[in-house]
Amino acid sequence: MEGKKVVVVGAGPVGSLAALYASSRGAVVEVYELRDDLRNLDTTPLNFTKSINLALSERGINAIRSTGNPGLLDKILERTIPMHGRMIHIRSSGGALLQQSQAYDVHGRFQRSVDRGELNKVLLDHLDSLPNVKFFFQHKMTGADFRKKKAWFEVTDKNRATPSDRPQEIEVSFDFCIGADGAHSATRHHMMKFARMDYYQTYIDCLWCEFSMPATKEGGFAMPPTYLHIWPAGKFMFIALPNLDRNFVCTLFGPVDLFTKLENGTDEELVSTFDKYFPGVTTFIPPTELVAQFKRNPHLPLINIKCSPHHFGDSVVILGDAANAMVPFYGQGMNAGLESVRVLFSKLDETPDRAEALAKYSAERTEDAHVIADLALANYIEMRSSVTSPLYKLRKYIEERLDKYVPSWGWATQYARISFSNMRYSEVIKKSKSQKRILTTLLLTATGTGVVGSVAGILLLWTRFRHQKVFGLSWSGR
Amino acid sequence: MEGKKVVVVGAGPVGSLAALYASSRGAVVEVYELRDDLRNLDTTPLNFTKSINLALSERGINAIRSTGNPGLLDKILERTIPMHGRMIHIRSSGGALLQQSQAYDVHGRFQRSVDRGELNKVLLDHLDSLPNVKFFFQHKMTGADFRKKKAWFEVTDKNRATPSDRPQEIEVSFDFCIGADGAHSATRHHMMKFARMDYYQTYIDCLWCEFSMPATKEGGFAMPPTYLHIWPAGKFMFIALPNLDRNFVCTLFGPVDLFTKLENGTDEELVSTFDKYFPGVTTFIPPTELVAQFKRNPHLPLINIKCSPHHFGDSVVILGDAANAMVPFYGQGMNAGLESVRVLFSKLDETPDRAEALAKYSAERTEDAHVIADLALANYIEMRSSVTSPLYKLRKYIEERLDKYVPSWGWATQYARISFSNMRYSEVIKKSKSQKRILTTLLLTATGTGVVGSVAGILLLWTRFRHQKVFGLSWSGR
Repeated sequence: MEGKKVVVVGAGPVGSLAALYASSRGAVVEVYELRDDLRNLDTTPLNFTKSINLALSERGINAIRSTGNPGLLDKILERTIPMHGRMIHIRSSGGALLQQSQAYDVHGRFQRSVDRGELNKVLLDHLDSLPNVKFFFQHKMTGADFRKKKAWFEVTDKNRATPSDRPQEIEVSFDFCIGADGAHSATRHHMMKFARMDYYQTYIDCLWCEFSMPATKEGGFAMPPTYLHIWPAGKFMFIALPNLDRNFVCTLFGPVDLFTKLENGTDEELVSTFDKYFPGVTTFIPPTELVAQFKRNPHLPLINIKCSPHHFGDSVVILGDAANAMVPFYGQGMNAGLESVRVLFSKLDETPDRAEALAKYSAERTEDAHVIADLALANYIEMRSSVTSPLYKLRKYIEERLDKYVPSWGWATQYARISFSNMRYSEVIKKSKSQKRILTTLLLTATGTGVVGSVAGILLLWTRFRHQKVFGLSWSGR
Repeated sequence: MEGKKVVVVGAGPVGSLAALYASSRGAVVEVYELRDDLRNLDTTPLNFTKSINLALSERGINAIRSTGNPGLLDKILERTIPMHGRMIHIRSSGGALLQQSQAYDVHGRFQRSVDRGELNKVLLDHLDSLPNVKFFFQHKMTGADFRKKKAWFEVTDKNRATPSDRPQEIEVSFDFCIGADGAHSATRHHMMKFARMDYYQTYIDCLWCEFSMPATKEGGFAMPPTYLHIWPAGKFMFIALPNLDRNFVCTLFGPVDLFTKLENGTDEELVSTFDKYFPGVTTFIPPTELVAQFKRNPHLPLINIKCSPHHFGDSVVILGDAANAMVPFYGQGMNAGLESVRVLFSKLDETPDRAEALAKYSAERTEDAHVIADLALANYIEMRSSVTSPLYKLRKYIEERLDKYVPSWGWATQYARISFSNMRYSEVIKKSKSQKRILTTLLLTATGTGVVGSVAGILLLWTRFRHQKVFGLSWSGR
């Protein structure tokens, strides 16, 4: 990629990381971003269609680590808050508030809460120090010809635009274009005129609204900060992630019906709905504040996008939400996006012919992207209700004991493999399916026939399990 | 709609018909079209991404008839050529050329072959005579705000543009916008920023290339003109539709692999492939001409699009390919598009509140649109192979006899209901499923147990059928 002109569209975390990878391979990198530089803005730098606090885990960290800048990774990790598990807030049958913690991992691995803007800033500052990376903020992609390798951008930056009432449009040539411009990607839109792309988008029946839970008067966190707090309520839920300023960034998720009801109801109804379903929240977010935030902050939809391929020829590739927007319930959106940068460049490094490398990348990544999108959808059910079910807890318990006490078996929960490993998403799901079959046999046998059955089940488990290990080895050998 | 400003995007058959419907309701109509007026062009007036000859049948005719302009409908029908059935061209096991005709309908109803441009011209000429319809050709939609009811168009018409090297952009306000701008609809693209649209597009593994089969030296048709000619060849096929100039407009359909092989092969290989699979074609299209056309004419993909909803608020609706592009194998693409205009305006006429009317339209039409898109895909299999299967022929035979000789039973083939009725597509499929269950029982019984079984089967059919009739009545009463 030495000396090649690489145009990155989008200066979010995924686009910034892609620029860094391209730059370290000697490319001449230009980053075009629709919005202003978020570092120039005083208030909330991002538009309100992006969640502000995100969970950063192994895949995202590994993608940053693989740039070979330990200082950069440290700077990012310093800005994160470890979350060692979920804290489930429920009301007992007697009406008392209960808080139950569930550790994320039996080996102590954890999620990290991070402000998207903070992470983005660290990456942008780092890129600023590189001689071969240039930024063009407030440049809106208006067209692209991916055969001729040209793109057009409208300059909305008042300082750069010509003194006329009509916006200036510039033409940019490139060798390679990376579109990391989000779920409503202009790069993808123009790429679809060249690539024969299968494309699927759907809005799920769920809206979200962000809330801020302030620090206490003493300046401390309102709740223990080392957890992702969840108020599961069947069809809807409320969650809270700790932020460096000792606030919690909270989100209400619920079906469109619930939002419509709350929007049309009185302030008292909103507060009493919270008190009924999300016990304790109004102790930390005062009711007047809660109502004000619900009215002020937008109520936004959730989109699920799958497409294939993710590239066209040797000319363009789309990454992150542009290729694979998912619902936020597995905490994998940004991690998957960052990982896609690492996977892309590993293919480019391995295969000199770029068209061939992109075809390989696309084939592998679309498979993984579809898996994690489906898992994220399924996890909505888990978070808002299954977390409290005894069977769910039992399975988690057994799987974790197997993982902890018989590590040689290579057993692990799906959650751990998704969040704390770099195994391909599509392999995780294969392993989980196999484990689930085995465990279900055990649990059914145990429940159905008591002690005798349990012994038989364990024997059965053992027999099958040795088989599973063989599969496990053959998979990891891929 | 009296006095309201209606902007129609797209001046193809569907957009033109929508303009006519809006105009007859007193609207002030402006039609914006990306391309030049096809009546100004000497050569093939359409871009090469649209098939030139299409099958016009009841739904399309009914939509034109319902404008209440018998003269207009007559002008269009004069430009069509009746096709009473399929003519299947195959080679016997001995190698002889066989032509087998299959009538489309037991009641003599037929398809009509029509040049898309001719039909379009008649509609445009008619619209030209209306004082409340204005055309803006060579205007490309560049943006739209469907809340503020404004759209922007770039004027690519050299005569209208300002004398500058940069294209002029105009802002257009409207009360209601109708997007009939094809599979790659700009209206849909901008509407998706407002409506939470579920959207699905897929390219099937099939390309197509158009050929022209010239008239004979004596000026006659090379083959009987009252048929849609088909050369079914399992995974691919060749078809021919008669044109008014006594040519046949032909299309080769085949998987990408086949096209790649033919593109990379010699001229002789192309000709021998035709001779092997499409016997007789090279007698009518001389081999040199066949090769030249295959090289000159583009090899184009087929896209299948489903989306929901088809509208946003009271502001915009998308129709035809923009909402529901389908593969061409049921001959329903244009018919469904024209029908959607009729259905839309029937909802608008019934329901004074436009937002409510559009919501009703969208709910009903998306269901029907998805059904016909699926049927069109399935018919590819039927056309390229099932037409020659004995079981297919037997079923068609029995169904047609039931339709013809016991009309009171209300039996009809799916093909007849799709092509020769105005029954909702979704009801057609319900009826067909029910009929298929009954027939399968009969056929299986008959085949399995001979004469005794046949008698039993007929009795069973009779018993079930009385039941079916009840359903039939209740459905048609909807």
